Amino acid sequence: MACCGNCFCCRCCCSEGETRTPEELTILGEFQDEEDEILPRKDYESLDYDRCINEPYVELLEGMDNKKAKKYEAVRWMLMFAIGVTVGLVGLFVDFFVRLFTKIKYTLVADSLQQCSDRGCLSVSLLELLAFNLTFVFIASVLVLVEPLAAGSGIPEIKSYLNGVKVPGVVRLRTCLCKAAGVLFSVAGGLFVGKEGPMIHSGAIVGAGLPQFQSITFKKIKFDFSYFRSDRDKRDFVSAGAAAGVAAAFGAPIGGTLFSLEEGSSFWNQALTWKVLFCSMSATFTLNFFRSGINFNKWGSFQLPGLLNFGEFKCPDEDKNCHLWTVVDLAFFVLMGVVGGLLGALFNCMNKTLAKYRIRNIHPKAKFIRVLESLLVAMVTTVVIFAASLLLGECRDLYSPTTHNTTLSGSEDINSTIRQFLCTNKTYNDMATLFFNPQEAAIHQLFHQDGTFSPVTLSVFFLLYFLLACWTYGVSVPSGLFVPSLLCGAAFGRLVANILKVKLGMDIYPGTFALIGAAAFLGGVVRMTISLTVILIESTNEITYGLPIMITLMVAKWTGDFFNKGIYDIHIQLRGVPLLEWETEVEMDKLTANDIMEPNLTYVYPHTRVQSLVSILRTTVYNAFPVVTENRYNEQDFMKGNILVSNNIRFKKSSVLSRAGEQRRRCQSMKSYPSSELRNVCEERIAAGGEGERGEDLLQQMLERRHAPYPNLYPDQSPSEEWSMEERFRPLTFHGLILRSQLVTLLIRGVCYTENQSSATQPRLSYAEMTEDYPRYPDIHDLDLALLNPRMIVDVTPYMNPSPYTVSPNTHISQVFNLFRTMGLRHLPVVNAVGEIVGIITRHNLTHEFLVAKLRQHSISV
Amino acid sequence: MACCGNCFCCRCCCSEGETRTPEELTILGEFQDEEDEILPRKDYESLDYDRCINEPYVELLEGMDNKKAKKYEAVRWMLMFAIGVTVGLVGLFVDFFVRLFTKIKYTLVADSLQQCSDRGCLSVSLLELLAFNLTFVFIASVLVLVEPLAAGSGIPEIKSYLNGVKVPGVVRLRTCLCKAAGVLFSVAGGLFVGKEGPMIHSGAIVGAGLPQFQSITFKKIKFDFSYFRSDRDKRDFVSAGAAAGVAAAFGAPIGGTLFSLEEGSSFWNQALTWKVLFCSMSATFTLNFFRSGINFNKWGSFQLPGLLNFGEFKCPDEDKNCHLWTVVDLAFFVLMGVVGGLLGALFNCMNKTLAKYRIRNIHPKAKFIRVLESLLVAMVTTVVIFAASLLLGECRDLYSPTTHNTTLSGSEDINSTIRQFLCTNKTYNDMATLFFNPQEAAIHQLFHQDGTFSPVTLSVFFLLYFLLACWTYGVSVPSGLFVPSLLCGAAFGRLVANILKVKLGMDIYPGTFALIGAAAFLGGVVRMTISLTVILIESTNEITYGLPIMITLMVAKWTGDFFNKGIYDIHIQLRGVPLLEWETEVEMDKLTANDIMEPNLTYVYPHTRVQSLVSILRTTVYNAFPVVTENRYNEQDFMKGNILVSNNIRFKKSSVLSRAGEQRRRCQSMKSYPSSELRNVCEERIAAGGEGERGEDLLQQMLERRHAPYPNLYPDQSPSEEWSMEERFRPLTFHGLILRSQLVTLLIRGVCYTENQSSATQPRLSYAEMTEDYPRYPDIHDLDLALLNPRMIVDVTPYMNPSPYTVSPNTHISQVFNLFRTMGLRHLPVVNAVGEIVGIITRHNLTHEFLVAKLRQHSISV
Repeated sequence: MACCGNCFCCRCCCSEGETRTPEELTILGEFQDEEDEILPRKDYESLDYDRCINEPYVELLEGMDNKKAKKYEAVRWMLMFAIGVTVGLVGLFVDFFVRLFTKIKYTLVADSLQQCSDRGCLSVSLLELLAFNLTFVFIASVLVLVEPLAAGSGIPEIKSYLNGVKVPGVVRLRTCLCKAAGVLFSVAGGLFVGKEGPMIHSGAIVGAGLPQFQSITFKKIKFDFSYFRSDRDKRDFVSAGAAAGVAAAFGAPIGGTLFSLEEGSSFWNQALTWKVLFCSMSATFTLNFFRSGINFNKWGSFQLPGLLNFGEFKCPDEDKNCHLWTVVDLAFFVLMGVVGGLLGALFNCMNKTLAKYRIRNIHPKAKFIRVLESLLVAMVTTVVIFAASLLLGECRDLYSPTTHNTTLSGSEDINSTIRQFLCTNKTYNDMATLFFNPQEAAIHQLFHQDGTFSPVTLSVFFLLYFLLACWTYGVSVPSGLFVPSLLCGAAFGRLVANILKVKLGMDIYPGTFALIGAAAFLGGVVRMTISLTVILIESTNEITYGLPIMITLMVAKWTGDFFNKGIYDIHIQLRGVPLLEWETEVEMDKLTANDIMEPNLTYVYPHTRVQSLVSILRTTVYNAFPVVTENRYNEQDFMKGNILVSNNIRFKKSSVLSRAGEQRRRCQSMKSYPSSELRNVCEERIAAGGEGERGEDLLQQMLERRHAPYPNLYPDQSPSEEWSMEERFRPLTFHGLILRSQLVTLLIRGVCYTENQSSATQPRLSYAEMTEDYPRYPDIHDLDLALLNPRMIVDVTPYMNPSPYTVSPNTHISQVFNLFRTMGLRHLPVVNAVGEIVGIITRHNLTHEFLVAKLRQHSISV
Repeated sequence: MACCGNCFCCRCCCSEGETRTPEELTILGEFQDEEDEILPRKDYESLDYDRCINEPYVELLEGMDNKKAKKYEAVRWMLMFAIGVTVGLVGLFVDFFVRLFTKIKYTLVADSLQQCSDRGCLSVSLLELLAFNLTFVFIASVLVLVEPLAAGSGIPEIKSYLNGVKVPGVVRLRTCLCKAAGVLFSVAGGLFVGKEGPMIHSGAIVGAGLPQFQSITFKKIKFDFSYFRSDRDKRDFVSAGAAAGVAAAFGAPIGGTLFSLEEGSSFWNQALTWKVLFCSMSATFTLNFFRSGINFNKWGSFQLPGLLNFGEFKCPDEDKNCHLWTVVDLAFFVLMGVVGGLLGALFNCMNKTLAKYRIRNIHPKAKFIRVLESLLVAMVTTVVIFAASLLLGECRDLYSPTTHNTTLSGSEDINSTIRQFLCTNKTYNDMATLFFNPQEAAIHQLFHQDGTFSPVTLSVFFLLYFLLACWTYGVSVPSGLFVPSLLCGAAFGRLVANILKVKLGMDIYPGTFALIGAAAFLGGVVRMTISLTVILIESTNEITYGLPIMITLMVAKWTGDFFNKGIYDIHIQLRGVPLLEWETEVEMDKLTANDIMEPNLTYVYPHTRVQSLVSILRTTVYNAFPVVTENRYNEQDFMKGNILVSNNIRFKKSSVLSRAGEQRRRCQSMKSYPSSELRNVCEERIAAGGEGERGEDLLQQMLERRHAPYPNLYPDQSPSEEWSMEERFRPLTFHGLILRSQLVTLLIRGVCYTENQSSATQPRLSYAEMTEDYPRYPDIHDLDLALLNPRMIVDVTPYMNPSPYTVSPNTHISQVFNLFRTMGLRHLPVVNAVGEIVGIITRHNLTHEFLVAKLRQHSISV
């Protein structure tokens, strides 16, 4: 709790956007490990969501008629069903063992408590509890050591993935196993963590893995693998899996579908959404079926929707004046939303500080330090709840269970989860009732228990939960944040209800206030909008709560956004993931594609020698290369004796922006910046630009002193340092885009022809051959050069994407951003009015930080 | 019922896609008024959903900082709230008067029934009923005469609008008034119509109108009108309004939001969706607030969610073995889904035949014929339900109201809507209970009445409803289809339940079967997916029904789709609206942009004389013109003594597709077709193409004999008949796109400069001035030519869209379609590798019919 002291003063450091880092660093994309800002890292790549319709793909399509397409469609539906069922079973597995372990633990501890009541004896109970918790947490922590990505809730990773960022390892089977097993132990270990986030992550992995898994195991089933082997299909299945995860966790299939739309959707794809909803339904009902069967032995009925559900909110039948909420309550809900937003912002701020501390001081150290931290958290948590129940819990009268009892939807009576702890008969310890129960039961208590909790208990509970949950989230165990937030908020809401009902004598329904408090705090922490509203509505199974929940979430989000981002976004930012927001700010439209694109290109020609390709692939890190032809002889002006013609020609000239011109302009504007290194680069370039006239000679020189063993005979790639600016940025007509993975595949499979033959003699690869190595394509450095004839020529045109979406240099940012985001692009070439490529835009050129820096630069130069 | 006899044989005529019309007609876009197919009409335009970021817009942005942007955001939220509240009030208005009129009607008729029971007296009651119904229907019908667009459910119109088609008059205030008032009378008039569809339409109009209305009335409030004056913002508000309409009609805010996403969304815009959800919530709760207040005098509580709600499905508390549904029931639900799909397909088929008959035989005649038809329908309906209740109704024992009664969510007792008709005490007439009640009450009876209905009653009810509803939908009164379909399906479901429970003695919950039956039939008729699932779940307020409803809807849709389209799509097709589907079929990817684009372009130059612009605008009907410069001197080939260079140059040459080449190819392929007219055109062109060498001379000739009063001094537009093909299709570098409305505005406001001055002297228009006339821009024929100096020059470059999205000619259809559909485009220029425009794609080039025709042509030519 080191950060607690200064948590009120860290507002300034957590508020966004004001204390930006110097522009140059951002523009250069350097990683700045400073105190208060972590910039998006350059080493994250986008997924290839856009289809590359090259010749192999067209060939695949030729063999495709509507009948075959329908077959694939049917396979897709079956896969969706399979994913849903599997996710449901994973949820069942986690739930079953959590219940089992928790039950064993609490039964033993309760026994030992009952057997003695003097103080000395209590320490035995405490030690027993400690032993259980530490063991469980140790196992969870070790599982995370095995697979570090299993730590945390997994929602930041899934959010990044669905946003289109390739996060390595995030959808691997190993991660799923460690996560599912780990969360089981971390929840059973009494930590203040939920199992919902990890469920979503596990669901996403099932979605990614199942379509592939099937293809590996059941080879006998004539299943055309290559068709689903693309980032596009994988991402679709991942979004279905994540939705199924939400659906299983909360019993909220619609909420799950909206979650995957909110977090991940590119465009609204109706067919996909319908399948995702089906997948979510399958997950919910699989889980429901088995849980109803196992818990009540009522196989075939459906009574327990999700891992977490909120029970039934209803007025007692005999009370005709009872309302769940009225218009007057709405005003309180708005206020609670504000408070929830503030608390959430504080929580996020503290957690961010803590996470940064961990990144700097714990992560670099030996791994067992992380295990120790987990154990420390577990120990503190255990001791604190034990002490709090003992010292601060109040013994209260037990309401008679016959009147006013609210049953959990068809399951156990709510009074069965009341804990006496050390209280005498007919009374119960209210603190222990909240702490010595599974978290779901505690939520039910806060939502539905008619017996009141004392204000002290609620305050202490809230405070402890707030601090411990904040500390716990980020420890290296699988840990969700939903349930702790809900509990924390429910305690706050219940406190408000107590005050209003008991102190002010208002006629309210306390459960509603607990629910709204939970929504307010959760909304303040995670800042989700549509999907969270729907998830909460579905969890309560009461449509009438729609408006209050929505208003509370809205207010909480607005209030919180005033200070910082949502917790998931904070953790995404801390990881340096270049996430793309939903839309750009209106201001950004002052920029055009031209201002943000990367004009330094490495390119290939339609027909290129093997040696050049190898040298490009080895000397650059780009993942896509424009396929271009040179365009050296520019069209000559022509004039008629007519002012209109000259006007139009003048317009044409002025509207064509070339790379060289652009680069020169940039260098000049860059000179106004202090960074000496940058200035040097620019001055060098400008100096070179001055010598543009003798570029042709320079080129000739260069051609002669190319490095062995791959002398580059043709002036194609890898702009050398000695090139003049005109050489570096000479006009190139754009014809298509080819990916690094495609080039490597072509080289490895020997797709090339000799100089004296026609390119038609080049061997052809099928779609299946091109995608065989998906998702782990071979690296250029794995290539055995001895097998290649460097003088052979590769015709890349059949394999390139001949028609990627492009934009013109004067396209405004909002349009560029929409196109990029919506179509799920990875590279967006910028092509001028005469078809020359002038730059390329990737995800990194569209991150908020980059745009802000560019806008600043733009406004300075204007 | 004329079509009933051959309704089983019309399968062939209703099944899709097999009996296509000749390709040539489709390609030429001619309207073919044949027996069985109506092709998309050419006179529908798209909305301008894509932003045109020209100089006036950028200027507007310059004055925009984040603070101002936030202000606009706040205004948007307030507008959303206002729309929601207004839609709620419209719903309240309709509901209130429907209830009032219905109550008066039934009370009077019931009185007259009670006063006598001999046969002669009955005719008085019947006449009374007839008088009421005919009067009401007459009013409704007259209102539709005032505004023909008020007829029908309005969902086809809204669906078209949200799809991006400009349907004239569809969002006018007059339509809203006629629709809202009309539906009130058509429902009160006892027709088998619902008020849900018209509610959605009214909501959409409120959404379109309110932001404009505010700007006109409260001029004092400093409100920057121009900002919301665009098709883009209007469509956003319309989708919110439509969602609010659904929300008010069904009490389903989430379903409403999903409805507007499913029917209308371009891309998934999170910020917009969140606002739409808010708008829907406002509508639901406004309606709820007032209805709860008015009906129960419980102001401040919320007990009546939507106009239509399904009551509470729950097992009696004392029956522990009762389940709403079990796994076993699912099998029956699937079967019911199949039957529902079949019935729905039959319904649609019959209604389509009827609608075609109406188009051919009734619509061309005098308008009062339509009124007569409405009156005939009303009369037949009245007589039939009276006779059926009298002759076929069964007198059944009244269950004692104390046991097993299911209350409508907090409102009236279900037994209060039981009708005795002519039955003696303690019994009731089951047929009259269904017919002599508001439809909502009948639905409640079928869903919740424990007293059974006799199988005969249910069958007769189903059959009558099926036939009469089918006849009614399409009569010129405002008429929804949801409630009749629900009732029809519920009767079918209840029948199944009766058989299973009474005959087979199974332990089922009849209400569930009635609900599933309703879902199956409704799904079979309307074929909606996600939104319908969610709407039904929300209406039942029971999340456990998610899986059965979804599975039933899925099966019903699949079964129905085997025969024909959904009813709304059928009516859209009958109107010839060029609707774009969600995605193209996989097969279509055999085509490229090149195959479907329109290569015949009319274009303008950046600087054009007023006379040319006027002549273009007067002689063409295009709505956008590419801004181009000529590119007559093509780059010369260059060769190095290197095979690579020549290979690459060769590639470049081959990959550049020109308009002239494309047109020649087309003409040649066209020659294989029988149509003599087409062949002539092509031969003429090819002949002209042969003379391409002397094109320059021809041009010179042409320039000299241009027609007065606007001699075209510069070779710019309106390709004349005498032009050679090379002239018509000469290479043009593409710079931007300008809309007809923008050109007319420029001309009317005198934006031009004289020959001897620079274009900088041209007056500049602001964004507000450019959009002042939205949405009804002036026509070119309104322009007073005397005010214009034909020799002045207009510089269109500041006003054109300088960076529309473009595609390359070899882009495959799925990509073109995605871009067009997702970005809500109106014109998509096709630009080749060297920046020359080769064609343009509009909505009409992407309709299913056009693509199928092109694909056929393509496969013939291959």
